[in-house]
Amino acid sequence: MVEGPDGCGKSTLTTALVERLRAVGQDVIQAREPGGTPVAEAARSIVLDPNLDVSTIAELYLYLAARADHVAQVIEPALEAGKYVVCDRFELSTFAYQIAGRGLPADEVRAANALATGGLKPDLTVIIDLPPRVSRARLESAGKPLDRLDEAGEVLHRAVDEVFRSETGGSIVHVDGTLDQEGVLEEAWGYVSGIK
Amino acid sequence: MVEGPDGCGKSTLTTALVERLRAVGQDVIQAREPGGTPVAEAARSIVLDPNLDVSTIAELYLYLAARADHVAQVIEPALEAGKYVVCDRFELSTFAYQIAGRGLPADEVRAANALATGGLKPDLTVIIDLPPRVSRARLESAGKPLDRLDEAGEVLHRAVDEVFRSETGGSIVHVDGTLDQEGVLEEAWGYVSGIK
Repeated sequence: MVEGPDGCGKSTLTTALVERLRAVGQDVIQAREPGGTPVAEAARSIVLDPNLDVSTIAELYLYLAARADHVAQVIEPALEAGKYVVCDRFELSTFAYQIAGRGLPADEVRAANALATGGLKPDLTVIIDLPPRVSRARLESAGKPLDRLDEAGEVLHRAVDEVFRSETGGSIVHVDGTLDQEGVLEEAWGYVSGIK
Repeated sequence: MVEGPDGCGKSTLTTALVERLRAVGQDVIQAREPGGTPVAEAARSIVLDPNLDVSTIAELYLYLAARADHVAQVIEPALEAGKYVVCDRFELSTFAYQIAGRGLPADEVRAANALATGGLKPDLTVIIDLPPRVSRARLESAGKPLDRLDEAGEVLHRAVDEVFRSETGGSIVHVDGTLDQEGVLEEAWGYVSGIK
């Protein structure tokens, strides 16, 4: 799974890892969250609709509905068939945004997430580290100008960034997002090729 | 809250209780689950879409997303403003369908539901008791012919019915759904007028 803050290069790295795995003959599914099934895409369209005012816990459960459907209908069957799954965002994003960002209770969110994943854990979670100022500059130069954040928004973003920077343990590794795309890929590939 | 199996007369009783409360001068909000906010209605449209194959845990979380949004944006503000809320289905339906019907683990479902409701408990839960054969005959005569259920479907319906029939404690009361509409209303009103 590829994780990190907005603008750090997750989707670029996900695509590059999938191409590299296919180039060495692996059967790979490329995925992103929320999404990957008709139900998950429908939940995604609610949670990302700028015209809808989604309350905090409803947002959590829409993300978990999407994840549960994605795991049950795509990820689990793919793994059972011996395929690789490379996914842009997974449970770490929920812990960063919903617990650290929105302030929801950690134990309850982790328990609800475990029900959604059926306890499935990634073999590898690659976090792309990037200072917030760099990721924001990238988003702006890519034509995604951010709203000037109010104080609460700044607090949320700093909390989310802190989770991604500090998370360790289990299957988690960090790569340096200030490198160019090829550099990030090489660093991540070192870890991915190690789990083959 | 008004609960019970499909076809037992929940929506009829909900409407009648709302009219009776308004007739005695109360400020009342009539609601149904899943639904009640734009986000909850969007979640409802996913979970009830016959063209979508919703996995079991995704279904749970879509219902809980709808409930969380409904509680946060409608029910809590209404209660704080001193209004009555009469709702067609609430958490007991989740316990009946998702735990007894789908076989999801009770503790996890109850904990996830408690996060969705913020611990809010109904002042009164009216369960309309009706033998399954009677409710099925009513649905069919109302132009809602049920599919002939396979064995698994029959097991699910029996399990759900059993929860509604046997649930007691807290704010739960039972009314006799074999009475005519006026009889059901009078029996339920005896309980509702008691909590005023």
